[in-house]
Amino acid sequence: MTKIAVLGNGSWGSVLGSLLADNGNDVVFFGNNEKVNQEINEKHTNTHYMKDWSLNPNAVATADLEEAVKGAEVVLFVLPTAAVRIVAKNLRQVLDKLGTSPILITATKGIEPGSKKLISEILTEEVYPNDADKIVAISGPSHAENVAQKDLTAISCASTSKENSEMVQKLFSNSYMRLYTNDDLIGVEVGGAVKNVIAIAAGILYGKGYGDNAKAALMTRGLAEIARLGVSRFDAKPMTFSGLSGIGDLIVTCTSVNSRNWRAGKQIGEGKSLDYVLENMGQVVEGATTVKAVHELCQEDGIDMPINEAIYHVLYENANVDEEISKMMGRAPKPEIRL
Amino acid sequence: MTKIAVLGNGSWGSVLGSLLADNGNDVVFFGNNEKVNQEINEKHTNTHYMKDWSLNPNAVATADLEEAVKGAEVVLFVLPTAAVRIVAKNLRQVLDKLGTSPILITATKGIEPGSKKLISEILTEEVYPNDADKIVAISGPSHAENVAQKDLTAISCASTSKENSEMVQKLFSNSYMRLYTNDDLIGVEVGGAVKNVIAIAAGILYGKGYGDNAKAALMTRGLAEIARLGVSRFDAKPMTFSGLSGIGDLIVTCTSVNSRNWRAGKQIGEGKSLDYVLENMGQVVEGATTVKAVHELCQEDGIDMPINEAIYHVLYENANVDEEISKMMGRAPKPEIRL
Repeated sequence: MTKIAVLGNGSWGSVLGSLLADNGNDVVFFGNNEKVNQEINEKHTNTHYMKDWSLNPNAVATADLEEAVKGAEVVLFVLPTAAVRIVAKNLRQVLDKLGTSPILITATKGIEPGSKKLISEILTEEVYPNDADKIVAISGPSHAENVAQKDLTAISCASTSKENSEMVQKLFSNSYMRLYTNDDLIGVEVGGAVKNVIAIAAGILYGKGYGDNAKAALMTRGLAEIARLGVSRFDAKPMTFSGLSGIGDLIVTCTSVNSRNWRAGKQIGEGKSLDYVLENMGQVVEGATTVKAVHELCQEDGIDMPINEAIYHVLYENANVDEEISKMMGRAPKPEIRL
Repeated sequence: MTKIAVLGNGSWGSVLGSLLADNGNDVVFFGNNEKVNQEINEKHTNTHYMKDWSLNPNAVATADLEEAVKGAEVVLFVLPTAAVRIVAKNLRQVLDKLGTSPILITATKGIEPGSKKLISEILTEEVYPNDADKIVAISGPSHAENVAQKDLTAISCASTSKENSEMVQKLFSNSYMRLYTNDDLIGVEVGGAVKNVIAIAAGILYGKGYGDNAKAALMTRGLAEIARLGVSRFDAKPMTFSGLSGIGDLIVTCTSVNSRNWRAGKQIGEGKSLDYVLENMGQVVEGATTVKAVHELCQEDGIDMPINEAIYHVLYENANVDEEISKMMGRAPKPEIRL
């Protein structure tokens, strides 16, 4: 029985924590919302995030970071990107006080605004500046709702330490969840962090009436430019993008009608304005923020990402979708593999 | 104006030939069916294969191979796999007589039963044993119906000769069709040749009620085992499988309800027998044949392809789908990239 602190109790955090408790671990959630903590502790539900679903009753929740982390061999980050750095700073203080050095797992997907760093980079800086081996990223095609229903799911777990990625593989695996180890920590994070731009693009094509060939071409060329970003900016390994955290996550994000980013794109393709769509979604459309960060990276590093740039022009420079498509189809002829 | 002989006038052949005529080339179809040839020549339609659609009226059809090939700088193979070798033998004789050496393009996807060779291997053996540079493969996500409607499509064109792949890239490209060159001739053929097994598997999961996570995991791990086959049997390059002929084609085949193989799998997932499904589809289910050829390759070469093997067991050894899924989920833990 491993004690695991799960930092964050939104839908993905709740489902992962409950799965870890199902697998026989001692799970404590850390979250600021006392109402959610109380509901988890008393009713074993988290209805704001997950309707008609119960958590494993052995998992408990607290708003006290030290209490959550005390005795934990593993700390799982499932916080929004914007909260990671501050909680990581607090965690460093708690660990200093406790004198422990748990493995950190990140299930958060995103790029930090400003620094444009990935989550493992933030955790390394703030918690383990001299021991990046202690950090493991998990990522892959995994709607929380599917995992809650014990639908089959496969994801990657990556670390610079083989031992630690294999430990995490064992921790999560069960009859409906399968993990594959990968040694490309940062590469495994890139796909999930930037996929939502391609999901918006896929929605736009659908909204404009394009068919299956166009969707598949967009996703494949989208993957090619994500790989190009990953290799040139983050020194990722090209093959990582063929895996669960790359094309796998892109498939689930671009082909599921449950994807918010895809739905936002569909409305833009149907002629709605970005402001209208953002106001009426009632939920965050991450891709609309990510496209800006990636646009800046392309500018800084001179990386060729025509799909990201077209979406940036459409969302923020009032460009016409049809003209952007014509421009892309009319680009100079290119070889397929260009990293 | 390039003269192009298009060998085969089914749906994909008709659409590609018409596109090449749209692009200003002199196109002659070769096909054995005199009725189809007559319809193409007189009415510029091919209603048996493509309803409510007209070919470019400049394209003509003949049952005389020599007439089709005379003066042609390019010969495009869009025949069923089973017909390629015999037509290639005939072509060699015609070329000897004419004294010409056109570029050969293959748009046929498949593995030859028995020899288990890919189309470019057959063409090299039969037509250009000393000049494989003359062969170019085109492959990617391309429903003929989408291309006929001038929907956006992107595919790969591959050859051991950069010059010839760039020539083919130029030949097909226009405002709705974009080609990317690739130097991995044989790798570009592998994905399209074996993708249908994964489409059957995706249909089975859907028929059994599994969700988006399971579909994405299946496609990604399916791609991993196709790449493993390509690298170890055909000496393909791993990155080719991240491209249009690999994951691109797999996306269109596994996520479109128009895919016969997916629909066959769905019925099997719903509990129908293979015999029932094959009898009632009214069309060929290529994956049901491919799975056997790939099974033999796995046996011969000791290649680990658990999804192909599970589908083989389900289709031909009466295995239970749920048990096969349990077995796959319970396999020993594995690293993600294993070529």
